Amino acid sequence: MRDFLPEDIRRREHVIGVIRRVYERYGFEPLETPAVENLETLMGKYGEEGNQLIFKILKRGEHEASGEADLALRYDLTVPLARVVAQYRSKLPRLFKRYQIQPVWRADRPARGRFREFYQCDVDSLGSSSPAVEAEMCAAVTDALKDLGFTDFEIRINHRDLLTHLLNSADIAPALHGATLVALDKMDKIGRHGVEKELDQRGVSQISTNWLLGFFHDSVADGLGTAGADVSCAALGVVDAVASDHVDGSVGYAGRENLRKILTLCENTSAAERMRWDPFLARGLSYYTGAIFEINVPDLAGSLGGGGRYDNLVGMFLGQSVPACGFSLGLERILVVMAERGMFPPSLARTSADVMVAVFDAADAPHGLRVAGLLRQSGLRVLVYPDADKVGKQIKYADSLGIPFVAILGGNEIAAGTVTIKNLAAQTQVTYDQAAAAGAILEGLKQRG
Amino acid sequence: MRDFLPEDIRRREHVIGVIRRVYERYGFEPLETPAVENLETLMGKYGEEGNQLIFKILKRGEHEASGEADLALRYDLTVPLARVVAQYRSKLPRLFKRYQIQPVWRADRPARGRFREFYQCDVDSLGSSSPAVEAEMCAAVTDALKDLGFTDFEIRINHRDLLTHLLNSADIAPALHGATLVALDKMDKIGRHGVEKELDQRGVSQISTNWLLGFFHDSVADGLGTAGADVSCAALGVVDAVASDHVDGSVGYAGRENLRKILTLCENTSAAERMRWDPFLARGLSYYTGAIFEINVPDLAGSLGGGGRYDNLVGMFLGQSVPACGFSLGLERILVVMAERGMFPPSLARTSADVMVAVFDAADAPHGLRVAGLLRQSGLRVLVYPDADKVGKQIKYADSLGIPFVAILGGNEIAAGTVTIKNLAAQTQVTYDQAAAAGAILEGLKQRG
Repeated sequence: MRDFLPEDIRRREHVIGVIRRVYERYGFEPLETPAVENLETLMGKYGEEGNQLIFKILKRGEHEASGEADLALRYDLTVPLARVVAQYRSKLPRLFKRYQIQPVWRADRPARGRFREFYQCDVDSLGSSSPAVEAEMCAAVTDALKDLGFTDFEIRINHRDLLTHLLNSADIAPALHGATLVALDKMDKIGRHGVEKELDQRGVSQISTNWLLGFFHDSVADGLGTAGADVSCAALGVVDAVASDHVDGSVGYAGRENLRKILTLCENTSAAERMRWDPFLARGLSYYTGAIFEINVPDLAGSLGGGGRYDNLVGMFLGQSVPACGFSLGLERILVVMAERGMFPPSLARTSADVMVAVFDAADAPHGLRVAGLLRQSGLRVLVYPDADKVGKQIKYADSLGIPFVAILGGNEIAAGTVTIKNLAAQTQVTYDQAAAAGAILEGLKQRG
Repeated sequence: MRDFLPEDIRRREHVIGVIRRVYERYGFEPLETPAVENLETLMGKYGEEGNQLIFKILKRGEHEASGEADLALRYDLTVPLARVVAQYRSKLPRLFKRYQIQPVWRADRPARGRFREFYQCDVDSLGSSSPAVEAEMCAAVTDALKDLGFTDFEIRINHRDLLTHLLNSADIAPALHGATLVALDKMDKIGRHGVEKELDQRGVSQISTNWLLGFFHDSVADGLGTAGADVSCAALGVVDAVASDHVDGSVGYAGRENLRKILTLCENTSAAERMRWDPFLARGLSYYTGAIFEINVPDLAGSLGGGGRYDNLVGMFLGQSVPACGFSLGLERILVVMAERGMFPPSLARTSADVMVAVFDAADAPHGLRVAGLLRQSGLRVLVYPDADKVGKQIKYADSLGIPFVAILGGNEIAAGTVTIKNLAAQTQVTYDQAAAAGAILEGLKQRG
């Protein structure tokens, strides 16, 4: 986990501010949940590997010695959202659209761009199963990335129903579908051989594995999933090719129809140029039930974010299904790419203050504070040098921090009610009435640009 | 711990924004630290009671079964700051001024205005022992509260050296000073009798307790600590009265001199009218070494914030003392008082969207999304009703959420490239070219004020 120094924070606040403004234009409202949830709320929602990565909190007081945990740190923002929706159902609008930008914690081995504390920027729509929800999701994320300055991202989309149909066709039992998708999701990281090995360990037969991976291999050869592929025809081909065999194709047909509607709607939004159907996209999380997404840029191995429809998660808390769909942007990854590409506005690299106030003698400190107050009333950011060090040392200090102006109060200035403003870059200094100094500094800052 | 719904978050963001802008005018820079610290970093820094209120995190993986904790949730923002300063000393400016606004966690019994997860807004100056640091601290906090709309707060100030002198004079051994201050700090809550009892349990002799509480009692009778008391004379009286006896008065004299300097400097800042010397102010935390503060308003039993000088805390991590002074505002308490007094700007109570887009038929959804995109380009916050429910039901939904305008796309509008804008409050509707609709809605919003 990391400490964030001033420039890191300004960068993060910039990105969060842009994302927040876009999400509000889409009618999403802010929600925040506590860092700590009941352990039982989180357990069993993220699969076996997830359970082990949850930070668990020891019981307090007399129960501490038991070594038992009853609370846990938030692992993502989706499960807490489902808990909130179940808990406040009657207080929330029927179509609940919320965004949530908060840290989550995972006891993962830290690696480049992967931290144990990291921020997620989530948007979710609850209460409607309309494909317009997915289309708006993709448009909102597109606008956010565009407003941040990204021009080269794509949103890959696939559908759990198509995947289910494929796994059925490969004769993989429904109980093994979750594990199979987790393995397929790692194709980028561990390669075909790695996936084969993991499927074998999970109990998927070699015949099924061969059929499935062979199908994917042939699909790639046929150009499926490349940018130019005609999505609706291609998806039709996938479903027909395997439905003609020994399994019922209805799930696959429904998925294809839903995917086609979403993509048609996306044509009418800012996401139009961004969408690409990827028949191999699987997503590891077990709670997805429909469309799934992932965003990529060419110069990052992982994704900038992902999401999908999860119509059954709220039901695990409420006992009644609520249709839901969400998208999560990974703040750290966005920051990494923006830093590498130099995408931050130069204004974020600003110094801690516009002007530093210096006095010659400790007895003059009251005058220093009074003049600092005057300057602050004009909105200037003012550092008061607190000690009566030699003035040369004080000026050197301001210069070392990149503070552009020093306001000097010597005996003459104090007697005359004036202040001398030194412009460190221009090496000039002018004496002003104390009441006029703020205006002169503001003018000087404007000229520096 | 609590979930924060949209209006809660807008209120909190408003308060944080005001405080942040003021702190930046004083040359403080943002810092953030992880929620999780090493357990050993926190243990032993907050006294015995503090140790028990720390949320401790179980070791992960194979060590989980041991029931041992190695990490903990942040308990305040001061100890993590001291760790940061020790860790990054060479990277930070010699005079390091930072603000930090983040949640902290304490396993306290929840009560009115007291939560197990709550935000602190801290400012700290490190690297100088000048009294100008304390004066600027008080001025910054004063400006923040004034900018939030508070007019009736006062900043009570006292000095640990004066308290030390008093405890020495009461013949209380230095080893018992910490526990004595913790007990004195509870005077407001548990009364004189409660303090007597606690001092007895801690091993302070009855003679010492009687002398100490008698001294405070007489001081109150003499008018010390009331708003009009002449601080420097009164503090002089305190020191002289007890120094003439059997203890060395030098610590007390130094404290008095420091207090006098701070208060003189405050006279030249916005805090001038706010300061009141309170000889009974003790503050519970063990790490304070000089001036201590607390802010109060008449209609809140607890304080809005507090702080003080702590010159030795960084040394516990660095092995080398760094002078330091800080102030912490309690966000939840500020929010409680502002809510009770109705101090929030009405704009914070806004709805989730400016306009809702409604179509009659699912087949028209693409037009709905396209027009929503047009409206958003003008900065409007737009909710797209995702389902093709009856239009009356859709309009009722917008009205129930307080959304002021509905943009209706029926067959005629779509054919003509127009959209009908319904003003729900005025019960009027006008049909516009789709490109002109955003302007009309913006105008309508302006008229609503």
